[in-house]
Amino acid sequence: MKKQAGGSRRDILVVGSVALDSVETARGRADEALGGSAVYFSLAARPLAPVRIIGVVGTDFPPRHRRLLADRGVNIDGLKTLQGRTFRWAGTYSGDFRSAATRDTQLNVFEKFHPELGAQDRAAGALFLANIDPDLQLDVLSQMKGVRLAACDSMNMWINCKRAMLLKLLKRMDFFFINEEEARLLTGEAGLMETGRALLRLGPKAVIVKKGDYGASLFCAGRAVSLPAFPVKNVVDTTGAGDSFGGGFMGYITGSKRPFDFGEMKKAMAWGTVMASFNVESFSVKRLAGLSRAELNRRWREYTALLAIKS
Amino acid sequence: MKKQAGGSRRDILVVGSVALDSVETARGRADEALGGSAVYFSLAARPLAPVRIIGVVGTDFPPRHRRLLADRGVNIDGLKTLQGRTFRWAGTYSGDFRSAATRDTQLNVFEKFHPELGAQDRAAGALFLANIDPDLQLDVLSQMKGVRLAACDSMNMWINCKRAMLLKLLKRMDFFFINEEEARLLTGEAGLMETGRALLRLGPKAVIVKKGDYGASLFCAGRAVSLPAFPVKNVVDTTGAGDSFGGGFMGYITGSKRPFDFGEMKKAMAWGTVMASFNVESFSVKRLAGLSRAELNRRWREYTALLAIKS
Repeated sequence: MKKQAGGSRRDILVVGSVALDSVETARGRADEALGGSAVYFSLAARPLAPVRIIGVVGTDFPPRHRRLLADRGVNIDGLKTLQGRTFRWAGTYSGDFRSAATRDTQLNVFEKFHPELGAQDRAAGALFLANIDPDLQLDVLSQMKGVRLAACDSMNMWINCKRAMLLKLLKRMDFFFINEEEARLLTGEAGLMETGRALLRLGPKAVIVKKGDYGASLFCAGRAVSLPAFPVKNVVDTTGAGDSFGGGFMGYITGSKRPFDFGEMKKAMAWGTVMASFNVESFSVKRLAGLSRAELNRRWREYTALLAIKS
Repeated sequence: MKKQAGGSRRDILVVGSVALDSVETARGRADEALGGSAVYFSLAARPLAPVRIIGVVGTDFPPRHRRLLADRGVNIDGLKTLQGRTFRWAGTYSGDFRSAATRDTQLNVFEKFHPELGAQDRAAGALFLANIDPDLQLDVLSQMKGVRLAACDSMNMWINCKRAMLLKLLKRMDFFFINEEEARLLTGEAGLMETGRALLRLGPKAVIVKKGDYGASLFCAGRAVSLPAFPVKNVVDTTGAGDSFGGGFMGYITGSKRPFDFGEMKKAMAWGTVMASFNVESFSVKRLAGLSRAELNRRWREYTALLAIKS
């Protein structure tokens, strides 16, 4: 939106998956709909800061999905097409959306994903390494030129299979986004506060523990705060909620011109919460892609007013 | 504190258990320490409103426990002594405090508990029916003379065994406090928002779903808000956290002179959160019983400041 072409220190570069998701929930189903961590992140971040995607799709990737991203100001120069099929995931959510059973995963071209950054990508001021192989995450980080804010997500598979590389990466991160369960797996801690402190000891400057409909917790230099989820009346599909949260958080922090302190991080948490709340109101990216500035501002006001306790 | 003797419309009457608890947690253990729902509730409510207890203990109940309550302004005229032993509970908490395994329960004199209210008890303006048999809860409610605010808690045992009586009670409640898991059991709903709406359909004017270290959610006439737990650095023992929350909530609402609206209920939620946060910092009632007004005000300020998001 703010700029379509040209690299800028105000850009966020996101590296992650671009997928076709088939999802079943108590509210219905979607078949081969646009998804993937880089997509959810981008659409949630773009109202707040310019975004560039690095990703890969197959030759079957529908041109309308590219158009959807480009029309919303997401720079997709780095979205490469490889011979073959696009990454596919199929899953069914439990009635409370607290777990999803994978019915099918086809990595397809995503298996051959080797992110190569162009000059404008490398110049981005902020980097979000979505949940991919820590080897690739480290490789991307090494390609960056003087990144100001670096963040990553991860998951149980990498914690179990590529722990050493993940730990190496974490030492270099400003923000680490992680699900509560995976945070426990990584640290071996049980309580939330102990888990948060243990994650900080791994190196990141701040840690964001995502807790689904319970909200999210921020840990940073001896301080901690939990923010609740926005009370969404009708949750349709929670796919991408974590990446939407990351997009809102990173979008705000990257776009802000204020001194970067605990209060600013709390605002970033609130923007993450707001973006995730829109995302879960529809299948795929329908709600995020169709958001108006007025809707966004209205929910921001509603959420912050909900949290305000008068003396 | 505000008044020791005499009945008043500004009093809260609490009916519940008075117990000797033996608790093991990752932080240590306590043996036959003062506990019980009526005790935790009273000590959390008494800085905010005058409290009267209706309960029963055995002849073995240590006089120092009576003194502790009376010294803190809790009216214990209705704490009856019956021949026999005091109610005892022994349990061991999991490392994350999200579950407790009961090692032993001895109802003792609590089995013969038949609350009989005196004239001053009946005149109390507010009533909290802690988690006891719904038959007894209904009986107490019928003894009240024009109670202004009536609230209750319940648990899985009563939901499973005395559902009809519980449903009858709920139609007459202003506030219903219930744990998330038990709320799902009672309603058969999976999602938090659906559960909250289903609970409201059972009759209470407002519903408070308690979610442990995830905080609590308030549902009331088409509105909903979740507040996070206070980030307690070192959780020692969560026994009584729910009743302390109830005490803070009811204490604030009963003591307040402002019009009773959603904003006031949010403040009550915040007071419940603050009281529960102190309670979990020690075994038994040590922390609640020793609280200074300055500590209380400091944490209130800290909590509300944590939730404040600047525009």
